[in-house]
Amino acid sequence: MKINNRFFKKSKKIYLSEIYKKLGKKNISKKTYIENINDLNSAKKNDISFFNSLKYLDLLKKTKSKFIITHKKYESIVKQYSKPILVENVLKAVSQITELYYPDSLNDAVEFDLKLPNKKKFKNIKFGHNVLVGNKVQIGKNSIIGHNTIIESNVILGMNCIVGNNVLIKNTIVGNNVRILDSTIIGKKGFGFFPDQKKNIRYPHIGMVIIEDNVEIGCNNTIDRGSLSNTIIGANTFIDNQVHIAHNVNIGKNCIITAQVGFAGSSKLGNNVSIGGQAGISGHLKVGNNVQIGGGSGVIKDIPDNKRVMGYPAKDIKSFLKEKK
Amino acid sequence: MKINNRFFKKSKKIYLSEIYKKLGKKNISKKTYIENINDLNSAKKNDISFFNSLKYLDLLKKTKSKFIITHKKYESIVKQYSKPILVENVLKAVSQITELYYPDSLNDAVEFDLKLPNKKKFKNIKFGHNVLVGNKVQIGKNSIIGHNTIIESNVILGMNCIVGNNVLIKNTIVGNNVRILDSTIIGKKGFGFFPDQKKNIRYPHIGMVIIEDNVEIGCNNTIDRGSLSNTIIGANTFIDNQVHIAHNVNIGKNCIITAQVGFAGSSKLGNNVSIGGQAGISGHLKVGNNVQIGGGSGVIKDIPDNKRVMGYPAKDIKSFLKEKK
Amino acid sequence: MKINNRFFKKSKKIYLSEIYKKLGKKNISKKTYIENINDLNSAKKNDISFFNSLKYLDLLKKTKSKFIITHKKYESIVKQYSKPILVENVLKAVSQITELYYPDSLNDAVEFDLKLPNKKKFKNIKFGHNVLVGNKVQIGKNSIIGHNTIIESNVILGMNCIVGNNVLIKNTIVGNNVRILDSTIIGKKGFGFFPDQKKNIRYPHIGMVIIEDNVEIGCNNTIDRGSLSNTIIGANTFIDNQVHIAHNVNIGKNCIITAQVGFAGSSKLGNNVSIGGQAGISGHLKVGNNVQIGGGSGVIKDIPDNKRVMGYPAKDIKSFLKEKK
Repeated sequence: MKINNRFFKKSKKIYLSEIYKKLGKKNISKKTYIENINDLNSAKKNDISFFNSLKYLDLLKKTKSKFIITHKKYESIVKQYSKPILVENVLKAVSQITELYYPDSLNDAVEFDLKLPNKKKFKNIKFGHNVLVGNKVQIGKNSIIGHNTIIESNVILGMNCIVGNNVLIKNTIVGNNVRILDSTIIGKKGFGFFPDQKKNIRYPHIGMVIIEDNVEIGCNNTIDRGSLSNTIIGANTFIDNQVHIAHNVNIGKNCIITAQVGFAGSSKLGNNVSIGGQAGISGHLKVGNNVQIGGGSGVIKDIPDNKRVMGYPAKDIKSFLKEKK
Repeated sequence: MKINNRFFKKSKKIYLSEIYKKLGKKNISKKTYIENINDLNSAKKNDISFFNSLKYLDLLKKTKSKFIITHKKYESIVKQYSKPILVENVLKAVSQITELYYPDSLNDAVEFDLKLPNKKKFKNIKFGHNVLVGNKVQIGKNSIIGHNTIIESNVILGMNCIVGNNVLIKNTIVGNNVRILDSTIIGKKGFGFFPDQKKNIRYPHIGMVIIEDNVEIGCNNTIDRGSLSNTIIGANTFIDNQVHIAHNVNIGKNCIITAQVGFAGSSKLGNNVSIGGQAGISGHLKVGNNVQIGGGSGVIKDIPDNKRVMGYPAKDIKSFLKEKK
Repeated sequence: MKINNRFFKKSKKIYLSEIYKKLGKKNISKKTYIENINDLNSAKKNDISFFNSLKYLDLLKKTKSKFIITHKKYESIVKQYSKPILVENVLKAVSQITELYYPDSLNDAVEFDLKLPNKKKFKNIKFGHNVLVGNKVQIGKNSIIGHNTIIESNVILGMNCIVGNNVLIKNTIVGNNVRILDSTIIGKKGFGFFPDQKKNIRYPHIGMVIIEDNVEIGCNNTIDRGSLSNTIIGANTFIDNQVHIAHNVNIGKNCIITAQVGFAGSSKLGNNVSIGGQAGISGHLKVGNNVQIGGGSGVIKDIPDNKRVMGYPAKDIKSFLKEKK
């Protein structure tokens, strides 16, 4: 995971004292500054990071981060490798610190600074009527952009891409030969927040969407960007209509995702996975390579490579069909 | 339930003789007039109402309405409280009388009398390109409206609201601090009609959508307005992408509705209800407070307070997971 | 099935030698030419056709086509009626030949040659703002077209139709008194392709969508056009919001399709079929007349006339409800 700040403006370095203050802790001296917030894997020496589950112990051992937000129960482990900063709710603290570094990341619902495309800048690109384009957008040659489509600032689109009508693309990097069909919405923030009886607290999303070469994305899809990490669609994956892909989902190469499939956040798919219509994939799962998931299935646990599953909850397809006879 | 005629122009008072004629009954004298049609609870003395199920006996006992459309089998009950008007199909008769009072309620698919927003009128509001606004629209200060969005006549939007791009809002009253994200459609008529082999007969929808403070509604949602009563989204409820909410549905406060959930008509949810992705809620159900419904569930009966359910049909989550082991 | 070339420009007749070359076969003499590619039923004497399953033996016996693409295992059967052209993958060969005849059928994602409607041409039609219309579009009198809607070239729309806002219609013939509500997308290519590890090969779609009289299609639907044959919505069928209808699906008359239902490719429904919300219908199935399919069902085999089914997989509704007690 690399955090790319092409889309979200980072505040300058922040003193550790400000971070302590944000977390409601006692002031400490102002001398130490922190460059950024990052996960264990990507964090550099002067970044702050976080540890919330023993699953990530290996990453903790190797992290370069000198300051780790964590819960009391992990204190003794974390302090073997780094300096623990104890909080009650790790994810909420991460959210607060992220907002400190990226104050605009919660208010990007609409970009007003859009213009009709400048024909001098985009020489070999075909645009429909009423297309709106932001600043520093890059579009590769021979790409076409349909009517009423919006491409927000800093988006990169490769060569030979076809973008349909009424499409909205933000916070996204798109490869070559990609098709994104009508009314699809890519790159808005994910559905992440901390429930609060008075007013829910939104989780800042500073990740991107990355779409590799030769991908096809059908109509009326919604693909949310990542929170700290990115949402990724692997090369040559084809996606049908009305599919929902939540924040941080990673889909491998050569996958086939049929209509009305839904992914909850942070699941990872291998390569050559095929998913039948209306299936649902719960959050934080790992689906192996060459897996086949039958239409209408509800996947609620990891699936190893080469398995064929079906059902709700999804199980081996042979047992499913046998039981249902 | 209050019927608000901000959105639908009511005909002047109608004589009872016209109502009888519409229902295919013998003419009666022209002296009595009826002000409006309403449900038992909201009807005033000069309104006509209807009785179609013993569930509503308590409301019948207290209604102020002097004229009640009903079926022969309820005649003896109704006449203890009011004057019964007997018909074969109560809902169809209600539909016909509603159309008599609100002749425009069936033909509101497109409003043509829209204009670019008048900057003098909307001083502290930010509008994107190609926004269209109807007459008598009210928008609170510091709200923003994205590109290509349409806000039809008489819609009220509170302060600090964020409306995304390509949104369509009609027949809707929105509170403060509400977010309605891209390509969502709010306030069109519901999917109500009487099947007819030659040409189905549409049910007039004269209800509204009411969205309370601090609500978030994601992308590509469809939220239909009520028929006689209203569709309501309670304060601080968050809704993900691609959710469908049918006519007359009432969702409580602080609910969490994940992507691709669907609600059939007229169901009522309590407060603090959370619903996992792709779950479906049948029509006319009552879901209590603090209920948790697992992803992919199909809810086909009422759920009492504080229950956790999952499955198709949905049942207690522990029995579901145990059976499926 | 009739292939209508109103939407896709056919190349002039092609010599059999070119077809052989495309299929990677040895050159043969240039004398025989082939007019078109078609299915067994529609093919004329000078058309090429294909045979891929014994299900279609009766059609093979009656076909007029003199040249039939088929697999070695059907060679002895086919040669009793016609000249077999042997290939490894029949559908892939059909796809290649279709592309030879209709070279534009794979690149129709956006039509750039659209204009604001000419008021002289469309005299009794009401158009919203920013409507775009292609060449040779026909619209019957008293129809209305909402804001930001796109109607591509050659589309035919009947009288008294209501088309909502942000609708996209292409490759479609629409009858009279049809309603197509906001943000629905009709007539784009289906989700058909041959997986290839480097770059999937798209299946050309040269079929249309045909929508008969008195149909209502709700918001945010996606209805794909046929590949060789057509996608058809029968008269007086009503469809709710967020429904997906894949290529070649045929829906009968007077059907009721509730929200979020999905159809995989090529299934055929009879008349008077009703389908509850979120149900899914697999591909290549036959659903009889008067069938009722419960909400959330997953239909994976044919259903005879007059049946009521529910469940995943769908079965007789009584057994489903009994088992689930």
